[in-house]
Amino acid sequence: MKNLIVGQSGGPTCAINSSLAGVIKKALESDKIDKVYGMVNGIEGFLNENIITLEKFSDDNKLKLLRQTPSSYLGSCRKKLPDYNIDEAFYENIFSLFKKYNIGYFLYIGGNDSMDTVKKISAYAKLKGYDIIVAGIPKTIDNDLAITDHTPGFGSAAKFVANSIRQLAMDTNVYKMKSIVITEIMGRNAGWLTAAAALANCGKINPVDIILLPETIFDADKFIKKLKSVMETKDMTIVAVSEGIKDASGKYIGESASALMGDGFNHAALGGVGKIIESIIKQKLNIKTRCIEFSTLQRCYSQSLSLSDYEESFNAGYEGTKHALNDNTGFMAGFTRVSQNPYKCEVDFYDVNEIANIEKKIPDDMISEDKMFVTQKFIDYAKPLINGEPEIIYNNGIIDFEIL
Amino acid sequence: MKNLIVGQSGGPTCAINSSLAGVIKKALESDKIDKVYGMVNGIEGFLNENIITLEKFSDDNKLKLLRQTPSSYLGSCRKKLPDYNIDEAFYENIFSLFKKYNIGYFLYIGGNDSMDTVKKISAYAKLKGYDIIVAGIPKTIDNDLAITDHTPGFGSAAKFVANSIRQLAMDTNVYKMKSIVITEIMGRNAGWLTAAAALANCGKINPVDIILLPETIFDADKFIKKLKSVMETKDMTIVAVSEGIKDASGKYIGESASALMGDGFNHAALGGVGKIIESIIKQKLNIKTRCIEFSTLQRCYSQSLSLSDYEESFNAGYEGTKHALNDNTGFMAGFTRVSQNPYKCEVDFYDVNEIANIEKKIPDDMISEDKMFVTQKFIDYAKPLINGEPEIIYNNGIIDFEIL
Repeated sequence: MKNLIVGQSGGPTCAINSSLAGVIKKALESDKIDKVYGMVNGIEGFLNENIITLEKFSDDNKLKLLRQTPSSYLGSCRKKLPDYNIDEAFYENIFSLFKKYNIGYFLYIGGNDSMDTVKKISAYAKLKGYDIIVAGIPKTIDNDLAITDHTPGFGSAAKFVANSIRQLAMDTNVYKMKSIVITEIMGRNAGWLTAAAALANCGKINPVDIILLPETIFDADKFIKKLKSVMETKDMTIVAVSEGIKDASGKYIGESASALMGDGFNHAALGGVGKIIESIIKQKLNIKTRCIEFSTLQRCYSQSLSLSDYEESFNAGYEGTKHALNDNTGFMAGFTRVSQNPYKCEVDFYDVNEIANIEKKIPDDMISEDKMFVTQKFIDYAKPLINGEPEIIYNNGIIDFEIL
Repeated sequence: MKNLIVGQSGGPTCAINSSLAGVIKKALESDKIDKVYGMVNGIEGFLNENIITLEKFSDDNKLKLLRQTPSSYLGSCRKKLPDYNIDEAFYENIFSLFKKYNIGYFLYIGGNDSMDTVKKISAYAKLKGYDIIVAGIPKTIDNDLAITDHTPGFGSAAKFVANSIRQLAMDTNVYKMKSIVITEIMGRNAGWLTAAAALANCGKINPVDIILLPETIFDADKFIKKLKSVMETKDMTIVAVSEGIKDASGKYIGESASALMGDGFNHAALGGVGKIIESIIKQKLNIKTRCIEFSTLQRCYSQSLSLSDYEESFNAGYEGTKHALNDNTGFMAGFTRVSQNPYKCEVDFYDVNEIANIEKKIPDDMISEDKMFVTQKFIDYAKPLINGEPEIIYNNGIIDFEIL
């Protein structure tokens, strides 16, 4: 019998520990696995032999708490592995540790960079004939992984964005005066999460009129023109801005503040792009404007978990581990949408070489003609991903977490 | 039979509509009341005869939706009423409208300034012998109203602060590096909500070591000294900063940035006080620091409603209206804590003259000796107020709201 080791890497999400729970659950069930290990702080911690056993999660209550715990239970790292043609010693070191701990299966939960780790380690194992299965389980609020329909973590972050915006709309609407709210949303190169602001528009509440995506070129004049026209008929609007919007030269707006605003605007570095957009509006329109950065709250707010995300993230971990235990290697688990109405996604398995280091951006047909909103196709795509609410366990008003 | 009119005023909270629901519920039940009116945008809207009827809330489902709707359903205003010795015409105008709509009961839901409105209108009615009952129902996330044990809206905002900080702590902890998170919290002159950051410390998660309150004098040197000592033994800490902290001269830190930081720091006005604290830390300590403003989310985030707040806010409205219907006037409903263990508060009624225009600050015995934290007395006081979670109704992942 072999042991299994699982690690987490990259930035936090609300659902990454649900995937971890899925891996642990399947590993503990399997009669192919002896010990279930976790690497603390990803591959970096593993290199320091910072590993723990995860048998305590045979307790279903602990497993449930783990699933509602945001951020990486096992800690994380941002370690780009070297090319094995250049630094073979690095890989030999890893595999000697795999051997030392009798590891037969290595599961890595993470985003783009983590899939690069999966790709390199599985390729090196194949090259050297090492008998070890290596597989990736996706996670990222950015939703920017190739091939898979979407990524675990995106739905819950999208739900936070949509509901927060609706609540800000309610908050802003109380006084009888014109006002604009800028919300700055994560996603440096792919605007999926910013686009989710459109989900805030439903029922009688439709606050979002402009969405600024990193996939398009930010043009201050066109933006102000549209905003002005919106404010002619509305008292209030919410503008969703991706942190990664760029100008025509490809420069991040967050960096090109002086160019945009003249020399007087040298303090821009203090705030993010949202503050810059706020300044542009204040210069051009005489309307009360406030900027709100969702900051890291958008990726760690467990009270916004979507049931869909919570279940699918678990399934990706569980089914991915099952597939690995069937002697498949070098793959990433992902989702294939088999039905839109009713919504149904199945866990599928993709060659990690087709995923690592590729950023999936919003396709053109999901972006409106004026480049400042999304199309119905995006709404139909994203809507099912925020659906449902898992039961959250509180202890005297405080959400309970499972921690190392 | 007379009619009843209810209005809302001041800034939003998550629970203000629960109080409105309590008022409406009791008014609709009463055989003393014919029509139940709402003033849109408070007393200001009333002066423009912007009023609606509220009979649709005899439908319990609508009433339930109203209770989970953040911000003021009826809209709000910030109108300071004139002295009636100086501008009698203003009051005669109000009372002629009361007469026109056959108003016998006027309930006003709001904070400090709104209680000033209740005080003046009830005093004027008494002076002139007008047969009208005037009463206040409290609300404010600031928890700064006199006499009442606490205010509706505070518990839910405190719960948002405490749980958000815990989640930020989980988020910050994933990488193996020292880091500091500054959270900027509302409360310009009273630090109750900032103090609630201490509730984040429980179980194995104890991220908050420093709380900077407007009740104390901010001393940058003492602050850095304590922070340095905290970071000697911890990898991560969260500093809770009230937007209203002041220096020894009584000047808001947000305004005195240049004085504190030297001439080079002229861009401070862009960010709030949190950004200034962040800059101080960056100058004095070589530790990664991030600042997060909870901004208006902290007062409108329905997913953070505490059941205690939700129920008590409703009861304040319901019992306050009942008391008014028993011909009491010039009072504000509030809470008297009749038992601490188990926690129990009862709705009580206080002379509005003893409440209007008074700000209740955190007493000395709830602030730690070093003035940079709270005492156990505060924890014991605040803990029951964030307890429990009401059932929230969602529609395809989006929280449902009742809107005008």
